[in-house]
Amino acid sequence: MPLPQPDLPEPAHPDIDSMLSRKFGKEIANYFSGSPLNRVSFLRPDHAFLSLALKHPSTSFLLFNKTEPLIKSPTELAYAKFKDVQPVIGNDPFEKSEEDQIKEYNSVAYTPQLVFLGLDESKEGLIYKEYYKGQPYFALDITPKESVTEAAEKLIKDVEGQGMSFSRGRMHLSLPAQEAAIYAEARHLLDWNARNPFCAACGYPTLSVNAGFKRTCPPRDLAPMIKNTANTPDKPPCATRTGISNLSFPRTDPTVIMAVVSADGQKILLGRQKRWPPYWYSTLAGFLEPAESVEEAVRREVWEESGIHLGRVVIHSTQPWPYPANLMIGAIGQAIPGGEEIHLGHDAELDDAKWFTAEEVREALRVGTSGLGEGPGPEYKEGGLRLPPKTAIANQLMSAVVGGFVSGMPMI
Amino acid sequence: MPLPQPDLPEPAHPDIDSMLSRKFGKEIANYFSGSPLNRVSFLRPDHAFLSLALKHPSTSFLLFNKTEPLIKSPTELAYAKFKDVQPVIGNDPFEKSEEDQIKEYNSVAYTPQLVFLGLDESKEGLIYKEYYKGQPYFALDITPKESVTEAAEKLIKDVEGQGMSFSRGRMHLSLPAQEAAIYAEARHLLDWNARNPFCAACGYPTLSVNAGFKRTCPPRDLAPMIKNTANTPDKPPCATRTGISNLSFPRTDPTVIMAVVSADGQKILLGRQKRWPPYWYSTLAGFLEPAESVEEAVRREVWEESGIHLGRVVIHSTQPWPYPANLMIGAIGQAIPGGEEIHLGHDAELDDAKWFTAEEVREALRVGTSGLGEGPGPEYKEGGLRLPPKTAIANQLMSAVVGGFVSGMPMI
Ligand SMILES: [Zn+2]
Ligand SMILES: [Zn+2]
Repeated sequence: MPLPQPDLPEPAHPDIDSMLSRKFGKEIANYFSGSPLNRVSFLRPDHAFLSLALKHPSTSFLLFNKTEPLIKSPTELAYAKFKDVQPVIGNDPFEKSEEDQIKEYNSVAYTPQLVFLGLDESKEGLIYKEYYKGQPYFALDITPKESVTEAAEKLIKDVEGQGMSFSRGRMHLSLPAQEAAIYAEARHLLDWNARNPFCAACGYPTLSVNAGFKRTCPPRDLAPMIKNTANTPDKPPCATRTGISNLSFPRTDPTVIMAVVSADGQKILLGRQKRWPPYWYSTLAGFLEPAESVEEAVRREVWEESGIHLGRVVIHSTQPWPYPANLMIGAIGQAIPGGEEIHLGHDAELDDAKWFTAEEVREALRVGTSGLGEGPGPEYKEGGLRLPPKTAIANQLMSAVVGGFVSGMPMI
Repeated sequence: MPLPQPDLPEPAHPDIDSMLSRKFGKEIANYFSGSPLNRVSFLRPDHAFLSLALKHPSTSFLLFNKTEPLIKSPTELAYAKFKDVQPVIGNDPFEKSEEDQIKEYNSVAYTPQLVFLGLDESKEGLIYKEYYKGQPYFALDITPKESVTEAAEKLIKDVEGQGMSFSRGRMHLSLPAQEAAIYAEARHLLDWNARNPFCAACGYPTLSVNAGFKRTCPPRDLAPMIKNTANTPDKPPCATRTGISNLSFPRTDPTVIMAVVSADGQKILLGRQKRWPPYWYSTLAGFLEPAESVEEAVRREVWEESGIHLGRVVIHSTQPWPYPANLMIGAIGQAIPGGEEIHLGHDAELDDAKWFTAEEVREALRVGTSGLGEGPGPEYKEGGLRLPPKTAIANQLMSAVVGGFVSGMPMI
């Protein structure tokens, strides 16, 4: 039975349904979520599974050159097959067990980063141990580098010869939602591995294990350059090897983003950064800090950036954001009476912050949305408010607030 | 005007109020949230401010020996004054600017970790630049070590002589909520600094800046041991110095925790780990992975750990959890019809998982809750279900589900 997707079946029990609907409305799936893949995360240390998945004829490899994915067109990712990538990754990088790879670790040897993304259970593919079925997906970094320079350059030339290309810039405007979710997983994991070649606890090089979802600090390193004076390959003991350490696992930074309404509910606070085009505003946002609840982070960020004092805060929806590693937590907050005066002097992050009427925001959502690098729509009039596109959670938050006020329906 | 606290004022506009109430009920502040401190995060690089705050007579220092905070009793933290800590930290660790500290960085010199936690605006204290008022709070690591061994040992002897002690184990059951929130911030930051002495991008030692909220990889290190062959103190260039890098900032791991109800809404799924006492169960939980929305992470974790297929998922509340660095995101999920069969064989994390009736859970919430190391209440009967205490978000999630069913009120 495949993992359920955001397009959800109706619950069986009408009372529960109406309770949930009354309180929460439909679940909101933002762009970059809604992956069709079952990650089967518990199979990542299973090299027998990974070997089979790697070589299965149905398997798809999403290739990256640095941080750029291979695409057929701006609306379609391109995938390679095992025979295409074999010259870069060899016959089977999962031939040895993880245990043996750790024992034989040599930090001087270069291995192109490979990540197992999951199984698309809606498609025919591999069958493993009764329960696990579907088309396997991997991400692979083929940046021409060290020992794979030649093979990677040849592969890049081949795919470019077939009309495919590596996409520059941010792709978040044009891919279909499910493709965007696959790309987001791949990009986040490849980027995390690339940014973290060393152990933050001891400073020694680390090894990618668990099919790209963990970096371990091996107890020994055969690379001659870091042999110690006794000429043995042992390193000083590392704290990440005694007990579980979060340092070994991919990092995701919780980020709050919030639509702020005035105490009387009639106005919406938006801010802008200097580097944005003229008339462009968006909701405020910032990183959640250690030991904050989401609601506290929202109140702190709004006060620091705009001087506004918020009372109640409610969480609206969440969005993975792979630039490089964020979980966007969308919220709606309400100013307290007397706490609506804008003051930009605390944290000088914003170029401007302003209260807009619901009418202004509604009109801008209709005619003035676009990606940052693009022009607004044909109905936009110069000088009018410009806003981010539907793929941004900021847009969804503003739409929720404005939709509620206009129709008399609940805000969310 | 102080930053508003979770005890929120009534909104001015009754319509908005009723919209928010109808949809969301009151905001839920879990244990470890609700800090009385305004972090004034933008003042952290301001050494003039930090110097004044450090030496102000109202200032409180929360001392840690390794990860253990100084307490008066299990229900009260103890605080030191500047004159107490001066022998350990010197006359003014903020005398030089951050820029100069980076220039003169020497990784061999030991500096006890100091963290600026914030201002308690409800108390008389420092006044800085018109807007920023209150009693400053710092956390300080006085683990006897390297150059401060002697001074730290003397300070520890002094405070222990006055009847205070360093608390062993987890303190999450006994501190008042606001104290718990201060402790959580302090512990998370001290632990993060202690775990990350090296740069994950280049492997060289890093320097604590921004009053404990950032670790920077200085361009030079005066320590003779890592001078390069040309005998200059320059290091290889590091990626964290070109552009902003999340590696320089504290890490917080988003974690999902969820009360799972059956498709008909009549039963609750709970699981247990082997190391727990007999009859003890709790809600399922797990780390959110890269490029997942909260809802997707909830569905994946529940399926991987229990085999249950969830449909709709709603977010309930959040809780900071400083062991060592989590943001717990609490949710309620509903199984889809036909997706309720328990299968523990995917990810073998649980010892058992079981459907309980609302009645069983309600009774256990009344008589069978306690901390993991403690006995249940006097009304508990051997063999009955045992559950975590009110300070755990798991308890709040189960209470929300059960409360809704019993009273006919909405679930949350
Ligand atoms: Zn290490
Ligand atoms: Zn570095």
